[in-house]
Amino acid sequence: MDAVKTKRMPRAVREQQMLDAAVRTFGQRGYMAASMDEIAELAGVSKPLVYLYLNSKEDLFTACIRREAAALTEAVRAGVIPGRPADRQLWEGLRAFFTHTSRHPDGWAVLHLQARTHGEPFAAEVAAMRAEIVAFVTELILAAAREAHRDPDLPEREVAGLAEALVGAAESLAAWANATPGVTARQAAATLMNFAWAGLGNMMDGRPWSPPDAAHEVSG
Amino acid sequence: MDAVKTKRMPRAVREQQMLDAAVRTFGQRGYMAASMDEIAELAGVSKPLVYLYLNSKEDLFTACIRREAAALTEAVRAGVIPGRPADRQLWEGLRAFFTHTSRHPDGWAVLHLQARTHGEPFAAEVAAMRAEIVAFVTELILAAAREAHRDPDLPEREVAGLAEALVGAAESLAAWANATPGVTARQAAATLMNFAWAGLGNMMDGRPWSPPDAAHEVSG
Repeated sequence: MDAVKTKRMPRAVREQQMLDAAVRTFGQRGYMAASMDEIAELAGVSKPLVYLYLNSKEDLFTACIRREAAALTEAVRAGVIPGRPADRQLWEGLRAFFTHTSRHPDGWAVLHLQARTHGEPFAAEVAAMRAEIVAFVTELILAAAREAHRDPDLPEREVAGLAEALVGAAESLAAWANATPGVTARQAAATLMNFAWAGLGNMMDGRPWSPPDAAHEVSG
Repeated sequence: MDAVKTKRMPRAVREQQMLDAAVRTFGQRGYMAASMDEIAELAGVSKPLVYLYLNSKEDLFTACIRREAAALTEAVRAGVIPGRPADRQLWEGLRAFFTHTSRHPDGWAVLHLQARTHGEPFAAEVAAMRAEIVAFVTELILAAAREAHRDPDLPEREVAGLAEALVGAAESLAAWANATPGVTARQAAATLMNFAWAGLGNMMDGRPWSPPDAAHEVSG
């Protein structure tokens, strides 16, 4: 590590530069296609220094996922002001989410497109972040049910399913918004809020959509 | 190819057996971790025969994606009876979707978890299937807007965003339902229908969720 101390720039700063370059390269080219040469060049450092700091391509990718996942969850949490009505909190959370993903499209690509491939060691990192966001959304939905002055009589499994649906919808919309010129973070958040809240709102008010008479249906 | 003709089993049948084994192995272990040895053994054939028929691991995976994507879109299309009210069509489509993904969890894992990693050649196959399903859902939403006896005055971009949200929610719920013991296809479909339709229904009726006064908001 003595070699490192002779550099003028502190290690932490250099590491962030390497991670910036790596997120950009992984996000735009994909994990497999991205080369360590490319990342080192973009970071303005030698390839051996990247290996010295981050060990391997796989470890570098894992470090990217950790940093981007932490930044995204932090942005969403910071965007939500506790104690407000549940719909307001959800709106704030969605805006924070879409604002962050639109400002960090490469980071989002790393999390959404690159890292969920299961069987890979880094998939667990993304799964942990996602579980945290789903838990947060589940709390919001339960709070909304309490606010509606009803017993939160939605079964826990139903709430878990709704949270999964909302998070999946947000993931999909973020990828779409980033790929569609002219769609702003606010528009994406408003689309999802309309989709999700008016629907959830009806459910909270005891007005769920009713399936057609089961007797007339094809089984499945 | 003469060597093949001497086999007692027709090539098409053998190929399907190889694909069955490959979908199971890729779906459960992931693309990287899956080995051609394992796939050949599970299919009850020699590894050279797998290469002879399917050429390479990458081509085999692409063939898996094509088959599973075609089966899923076909199942959804077959589940929807044209001419019925839009909510009924959506309900039927969702039930067909969740029924198929619950009966073919490995095929769904191949499509959802393994194949979206961008930068890979096979990602285009999944993107094409997804685009077809999004287009189908977009049509349903437009039909619903027409049925509501209003001009379909939702801007095209809003409808595209709603379709992306719905498809993303369905993808997420399918993965959750397959990972959660006791959640049936019907329950998953009902959860999403409640989430989505009551929300879409409100929008069609001109009762969107209203964002709070913009003047009081943090910009983003």
